[in-house]
Amino acid sequence: MSGVRIVEVGPRDGLQNESALIPLDVKLRFVRSLADAGLKEIEATSFVSPKWVPQLGDAAELWPKLPEGPLYSALVPNLKGLERALDLDVQRIAVFTAASESFTKANVNMTIAETIDQFRLVIARFRHPCRPNWARGYVSTAFECPYEGRINPKKVLEVCEALIGLGVDEISIGDTIGVASPAEVRVLGREILAAFGNQIIPKITWHFHDTWGTGLANLSAALDLGFRSFDSSAGGLGGCPYAPGAGGNLATEDVIYLLERTGISTGVDLDSLSRATEEVLACVGRSPAAKSQIASLGRSSVG
Amino acid sequence: MSGVRIVEVGPRDGLQNESALIPLDVKLRFVRSLADAGLKEIEATSFVSPKWVPQLGDAAELWPKLPEGPLYSALVPNLKGLERALDLDVQRIAVFTAASESFTKANVNMTIAETIDQFRLVIARFRHPCRPNWARGYVSTAFECPYEGRINPKKVLEVCEALIGLGVDEISIGDTIGVASPAEVRVLGREILAAFGNQIIPKITWHFHDTWGTGLANLSAALDLGFRSFDSSAGGLGGCPYAPGAGGNLATEDVIYLLERTGISTGVDLDSLSRATEEVLACVGRSPAAKSQIASLGRSSVG
Repeated sequence: MSGVRIVEVGPRDGLQNESALIPLDVKLRFVRSLADAGLKEIEATSFVSPKWVPQLGDAAELWPKLPEGPLYSALVPNLKGLERALDLDVQRIAVFTAASESFTKANVNMTIAETIDQFRLVIARFRHPCRPNWARGYVSTAFECPYEGRINPKKVLEVCEALIGLGVDEISIGDTIGVASPAEVRVLGREILAAFGNQIIPKITWHFHDTWGTGLANLSAALDLGFRSFDSSAGGLGGCPYAPGAGGNLATEDVIYLLERTGISTGVDLDSLSRATEEVLACVGRSPAAKSQIASLGRSSVG
Repeated sequence: MSGVRIVEVGPRDGLQNESALIPLDVKLRFVRSLADAGLKEIEATSFVSPKWVPQLGDAAELWPKLPEGPLYSALVPNLKGLERALDLDVQRIAVFTAASESFTKANVNMTIAETIDQFRLVIARFRHPCRPNWARGYVSTAFECPYEGRINPKKVLEVCEALIGLGVDEISIGDTIGVASPAEVRVLGREILAAFGNQIIPKITWHFHDTWGTGLANLSAALDLGFRSFDSSAGGLGGCPYAPGAGGNLATEDVIYLLERTGISTGVDLDSLSRATEEVLACVGRSPAAKSQIASLGRSSVG
């Protein structure tokens, strides 16, 4: 079976949605542990205003100190954030919109079309002058919005098409509030393949949350359809502050366990990964909660 | 989509594997809450020797006091246990073997063939004289044994065949240590369908544990193959004392959420179910841990 790509989003999506502020040195040790465990792509931070997301207010300090090895990316909400990122020579960015108008309005006070217009400027500036760079577009609330309910897959396709039109290198499709079932993933996955053809597969990443326990079942459904790229968060850190009741991201530990058990080599050491969040979890005052993390820590302590 | 059957095993498999002894009145309130939430089949206890499983030593006191409504069954390890069950007019029993010789040896100090010989006597006695009754056979460690590693699906088929030969009404296939992946479920599920034909489907129940977080993904894979019966444990109570490192059973809350979200009506109220284990969890000194239980309790407390 062909390789699978894992994009670790714990340092950004995870920490952004934990209320505690994590000291910079703890974050750097966290990222180093993730890299040492074998993760190759890490969304490290966000150049959003510290006023809105104080948890990631140290992005400019963090970025130059990131340990060598993985490919790092950063969320960039607008042109102002992009300028901060460009000052630090960030070469991989992510922009963030949604498949729900109500969510986008509540989240960034824009229509979806307005976010696309803004990203057009962001990406044009990012790519000028010509140099190596890479952009991801997030489509959040791709299955259900906390404000307007179920999302029609056609709406997701429209937003994907707009992002492809902007020339993004990949699209991350998010079950932001962690409510989807595998049947819905199959419906949306098949619609995406029907609309864009199988050549879209390398450009699609699935971003599942695990609020209702369906995250790994959803990943398994997407894997069955042939998709090969997934976002996850070490220790299941995170959630979504704009989505009432939302719990954590799908835990990277659970993803690694399932893939390795399925015979798909990830290059990630599960036992090392399971220890990578220990210090951060202590800072936020929580115990490990991801199943494979608990099982791995138990195995390690037994011998 | 056709209906799905859920067999709640929390009061037996769950409590058997919690170290705390739960008072009888708490157990009865637990079972009543499960029945009130809408569960229709409950494995309520085990007529195993109290010396071996003190947690279920009150089986004879519990059984006559079970609230009316659900169909109840009890685990019966041998002829002695069966006599205790028959004294109480138990009409649904379960017998317990495994697909691993090492596990069976460690668990009950018999070979698999010896357990089958014993069940032959148990089931003959249970069905004599002719009266309404029902028997389940458990095949545990159907994917992997903690002592001898991966289990060949052919071995599972052999044990299934032996149990069918005994005339059991259903077979519960268990991932006792909670390690399987959906790909393995598909392999074993397809082997079962190939060996026994689609008419076996109403006789097969899948019993998943969630040690490594794969329980719901495994259920989803079995559902896709057409299987329609699943064991689960409210609140994810349980584990396996004979399987080093094993965590909890697949949580009934997560199963209900996935099925209802998939459009399969279960008749179970998730919010009521999520509260059903509160008193038991307090007795064992744990917080709710099942994802859908946490999300449901959060939703209830918000609105």
